Amino acid sequence: MTKEKVSAIQQGIRQYPLLSASYQEVLIQADAALAAPINVPVPKDGGGGVTHEQHKKNYANIFNCGIVYQITKDIRYANYIRDILLNYASQYEKWPLHPAKKEQEPGRIFWQNLNDFVWQVYTIQGYDMVYDALAVKDRQQIETHLFKPILHFFTVDCKKTLDWIHNHGTWCLAAVGMTGYVLNQPEYVQMALKGSKKDGKTGYMVQLNELFSPDGYYAEGPYYQRYAMLPFIILAKTINNYQPELKIFDYRNKILSKAMNTTLQTTYTNGFFFPINDAIKDKSFKSPEIVLGVNIAYADIAPEPGLLDVAQRQQRVTVSDAGLEVSKAISEGKSQPFDYISTWFTDGAKGDQGGLGILRHGDNKDQQCVVLKAASQGMGHGHFDRLNMLYYDNNVEMFFDYGASRFINIESKGGGGYLKENNTWAKQTIAHNTIVADRTSHFKGKLKDAELTAPKISGFKNTPTIKYLYAKEDKAYTGIGLSRLVGLVSVPELDKPLLVDVFQAQSNKEHHYDLPFWYKGHIVAASFPITANTAELRPFGTDNGYQHIWNVAAMQTKENTGFVSILNNYRFYTTYFIHDTPLKINLVRTGANDPYLNLTEANGFIQSAKGKGVTTFVNLTETHGNVSPGNETVVNAKPSVTHLQIQKKSDRKFSLIFLARETQRRLDIDLDDNDNIIKIQ
Amino acid sequence: MTKEKVSAIQQGIRQYPLLSASYQEVLIQADAALAAPINVPVPKDGGGGVTHEQHKKNYANIFNCGIVYQITKDIRYANYIRDILLNYASQYEKWPLHPAKKEQEPGRIFWQNLNDFVWQVYTIQGYDMVYDALAVKDRQQIETHLFKPILHFFTVDCKKTLDWIHNHGTWCLAAVGMTGYVLNQPEYVQMALKGSKKDGKTGYMVQLNELFSPDGYYAEGPYYQRYAMLPFIILAKTINNYQPELKIFDYRNKILSKAMNTTLQTTYTNGFFFPINDAIKDKSFKSPEIVLGVNIAYADIAPEPGLLDVAQRQQRVTVSDAGLEVSKAISEGKSQPFDYISTWFTDGAKGDQGGLGILRHGDNKDQQCVVLKAASQGMGHGHFDRLNMLYYDNNVEMFFDYGASRFINIESKGGGGYLKENNTWAKQTIAHNTIVADRTSHFKGKLKDAELTAPKISGFKNTPTIKYLYAKEDKAYTGIGLSRLVGLVSVPELDKPLLVDVFQAQSNKEHHYDLPFWYKGHIVAASFPITANTAELRPFGTDNGYQHIWNVAAMQTKENTGFVSILNNYRFYTTYFIHDTPLKINLVRTGANDPYLNLTEANGFIQSAKGKGVTTFVNLTETHGNVSPGNETVVNAKPSVTHLQIQKKSDRKFSLIFLARETQRRLDIDLDDNDNIIKIQ
Repeated sequence: MTKEKVSAIQQGIRQYPLLSASYQEVLIQADAALAAPINVPVPKDGGGGVTHEQHKKNYANIFNCGIVYQITKDIRYANYIRDILLNYASQYEKWPLHPAKKEQEPGRIFWQNLNDFVWQVYTIQGYDMVYDALAVKDRQQIETHLFKPILHFFTVDCKKTLDWIHNHGTWCLAAVGMTGYVLNQPEYVQMALKGSKKDGKTGYMVQLNELFSPDGYYAEGPYYQRYAMLPFIILAKTINNYQPELKIFDYRNKILSKAMNTTLQTTYTNGFFFPINDAIKDKSFKSPEIVLGVNIAYADIAPEPGLLDVAQRQQRVTVSDAGLEVSKAISEGKSQPFDYISTWFTDGAKGDQGGLGILRHGDNKDQQCVVLKAASQGMGHGHFDRLNMLYYDNNVEMFFDYGASRFINIESKGGGGYLKENNTWAKQTIAHNTIVADRTSHFKGKLKDAELTAPKISGFKNTPTIKYLYAKEDKAYTGIGLSRLVGLVSVPELDKPLLVDVFQAQSNKEHHYDLPFWYKGHIVAASFPITANTAELRPFGTDNGYQHIWNVAAMQTKENTGFVSILNNYRFYTTYFIHDTPLKINLVRTGANDPYLNLTEANGFIQSAKGKGVTTFVNLTETHGNVSPGNETVVNAKPSVTHLQIQKKSDRKFSLIFLARETQRRLDIDLDDNDNIIKIQ
Repeated sequence: MTKEKVSAIQQGIRQYPLLSASYQEVLIQADAALAAPINVPVPKDGGGGVTHEQHKKNYANIFNCGIVYQITKDIRYANYIRDILLNYASQYEKWPLHPAKKEQEPGRIFWQNLNDFVWQVYTIQGYDMVYDALAVKDRQQIETHLFKPILHFFTVDCKKTLDWIHNHGTWCLAAVGMTGYVLNQPEYVQMALKGSKKDGKTGYMVQLNELFSPDGYYAEGPYYQRYAMLPFIILAKTINNYQPELKIFDYRNKILSKAMNTTLQTTYTNGFFFPINDAIKDKSFKSPEIVLGVNIAYADIAPEPGLLDVAQRQQRVTVSDAGLEVSKAISEGKSQPFDYISTWFTDGAKGDQGGLGILRHGDNKDQQCVVLKAASQGMGHGHFDRLNMLYYDNNVEMFFDYGASRFINIESKGGGGYLKENNTWAKQTIAHNTIVADRTSHFKGKLKDAELTAPKISGFKNTPTIKYLYAKEDKAYTGIGLSRLVGLVSVPELDKPLLVDVFQAQSNKEHHYDLPFWYKGHIVAASFPITANTAELRPFGTDNGYQHIWNVAAMQTKENTGFVSILNNYRFYTTYFIHDTPLKINLVRTGANDPYLNLTEANGFIQSAKGKGVTTFVNLTETHGNVSPGNETVVNAKPSVTHLQIQKKSDRKFSLIFLARETQRRLDIDLDDNDNIIKIQ
């Protein structure tokens, strides 16, 4: 919020519904803060615990009271901030490193320093908003005994984090930089921009160069990109307010604008982020970081009308210059549906570390969306899931990613942090929709090896009727080359495009391959008899994640081809497979070797086969029909594709022939044709 | 729709948004019907199959075209009805009993005659709406070769169903009665009202007397009450149009009005029906039957403003006189929140066959709701679940009922009908939240025995701070008396009322008791170590439904008291138990002995103990806190109740003493005090 815009914001609150509603929320919380006694407990508890939650609440209160003070100029809100900060100032210097510290770098207010940085990012904004209302001696007290010790702690004790090219580092930089500006301490601003040594080898500009790909993709994946965007954006906004001459929003070919767009593009149309790598699955673009990001992206970078659509669905704006502009534009009817695109987002600072591929078909109300993960490992939060594939449709997940094993902020579940099963299950390859060779995870589950290399983007097409992504991964297993082609192909006789999935493994030696499809919904039909185990369930294996899944059924198909039909959210999905030899289909469910119930429920079917030379898993998923429980009607419950056959010219060139509602169709696959890997006739 | 109101409805479509939107839906479907070739296939397939769905579509088309003809007077819609009915008339007499018939009484168009009745109820309305537009010879053809043979089939071949006091019978009566009126065949009207012999021993009036309790509760339960309401209401409306002197809506102290209200009262605030007995769980008051029922209830019986609230949430009205009134009233702002009440709905024609008890606390946006099933068996669709208890909160299920084992209309799942597991699992006692003695279902699962007797309503209170239901069941097991008290009790220190649950079993002999709580959500904490089976799962038992659940964990508590905390839909639920001896807590999950994957996923914890004399299971469930995944905050994750103790004066009089946020509270239970079973101090 700038001084110049305060009266316009006051006016906007009366005029624009979204800003008005957003301010009312802030006001309610600020008033609740005023009504409660000030509580600054000595730090004690881990994530989700009482003191942890209280300190989180305190920074939110400080921030909210700052906003309300600016709007109302009611001194009570400024006094609240004064009193609580004086309280912190009276204690902070006495607090040692947090007693609940674990393997993460500790803070003093929270168990990890990351939370201390977040605390400061919000608190310094609240302080800035009431700065003029505070007596000089109070400001001195707060700055001398709270903010300066904090700056010292962040830049000296936490120097390692400050210089870390990682989202924790970004939060540290934002806290240090913003505090430096507000306290008029340019040396700290320099540290934020150029690293602890002010030599430009680390710091914000280096992070902007290295953490994002040229497409604005963040190596840790969408969940952490969402989280990292806030400090990136808010520090940029602060820099732009104090030093507009730096033209920070133009830096690196408008990298922040691209990053914000990519953040939104890595959601499905229901707003939820693709949960690859360590991800909490109920994070959507409604989270506060993205509200702020969208507002600043619209107001300070480029007024894309699709951002207004997102803002409307967020049902909130920030009470700020940017929020004013967004809510005004919405009231003026400038909003247009957010333009989801099909593309590869390249990964790596130079864009040469693979990427995340996305295909979309249909409007934002009912969209098919396919994701192919061919990105780099993404540091410690990365999963061993090269060429993992996700499929969304009808506003829900169909083939999904488990995400992280974590009950965030639930203290009784491992202090709210990542659980042991995050390593033993969630990161393992078998937990993902990609090939596992010899029941061993990619890179044998070793992070260092995985970080050395990335998949290769090998194909892309985006026409109205044929869309595909093609990628290769040669290092996940020694001596095995993996490649996957996924496409959405319109077949005239079918209501919706077919999901085409051709997964090849190539090796001189024989290997055992498992290809899981973790699915939502319920299996309602199959081409072979379903024979689930009735009298006992045993784990599917002993390690690499296999120990965590029950083998519900193990079925040897008699034919080389067959299908499984699933009913999910009142729509049918039939996956046809065709293979060189009959496949073994295993049905599996999470929960084995899980004594503390740390795993959530997931169901999958796994295609298993041995192979030598080139082994090809072909799967075509037809999206069909619907069930209306209210009207008790069913349409197209039976799939329309039948008589699937394969005609091979070579391992890399073959045709899939089938009947689509009695019409013969041929899908030609030529993995060596750079421009037309898939043709339909 | 009456002739007098047609022009008002035409006007209303221009004026009232709800009527307008509803008409647009009808118009789209009618136009789709006109655009497609007429298709009257020879009946062949079972539920969900192609010919089944086509004939369903045909009656919907006939009905929709009738409406659009009335509104537009466009002859094309009348011609469609003429052509399709002439087509039916050219074939119907040749059709034998349906080839896919099963144990149900067969129809000729559908595999069960029930669907034929439904077909005729809609078709005769469509015919009536275009009657004036058809040539006399076409009408003769249709009546002679379709409707009269249908009437003959329904009243002669299906006589048994016509005279059956059951919802199938109701549909038959409605079809026969409405067709009789439209064809001016009074003898058929007489059969509808007084049974096939016209002697008044069966038929509609007898059904009105016997199928509903004096409170308007229908013995089969809410799911079938919803289904039965349509023929009841639409035949009443027809009678009222043709013979207003019968004052059918006033019959039996306005029983139809009461029944409609009870239908709505047996939903939770999210609109979904309590799924007791054989119930498909995704049925809500948005289903078409209830749209019609609400419209007629408002327009023809009593204009309760709460019905308008329901109509708004249905987002539809019927395009009819009644729909006009409802949409007009909504546009005039007359709507008020539907008034959900706490009450016993008595069961049985005389109201002496137990009942369904409901407690509600909180407004319609966030309501706690407890259901105690102490009703009669409810005929063949009844489950063996005397004193079953359901708990809803925060717009979702917490302790739930599995409902029926059926994939309705999914032909690949047993033809869409009830599955074998409906008998072996869904009806069995262990599938419900009530006591199972000696691992045997109530009445040993024998319908005839269960139908002979009903539980006894033994207590009720409904004050702002204390609400309870109390009921007894002495016949479910020979020699064991069961009684259950469930209440919602406000404790000043707690955010929401405590769910109090005191379940007693009394017997001279020792028995093994299992008390399941089937829950939604995920167990996140317990007072005892959770030790789930890691290496194998075995069924919990061998029969009576036990064979269908895996025993995930079997834990012997060391104390007489303890708790289990569950996180469900971002809110916490902690169930404290206290017992005479330490309990065994079993965690269970559906899926055992389920080779075809007919069961859906359900999780439960079961309290197990042996007991002789009076065995008392006390459970207090605290509803607390919340998790905000967007803001990453957690509030009150830890429960506030601690140190639960029991002080007994006798088996039927005791106090539960506990700390609620450090304040000592005492809950006095006196099961012999008729007016104050629960007191809180």
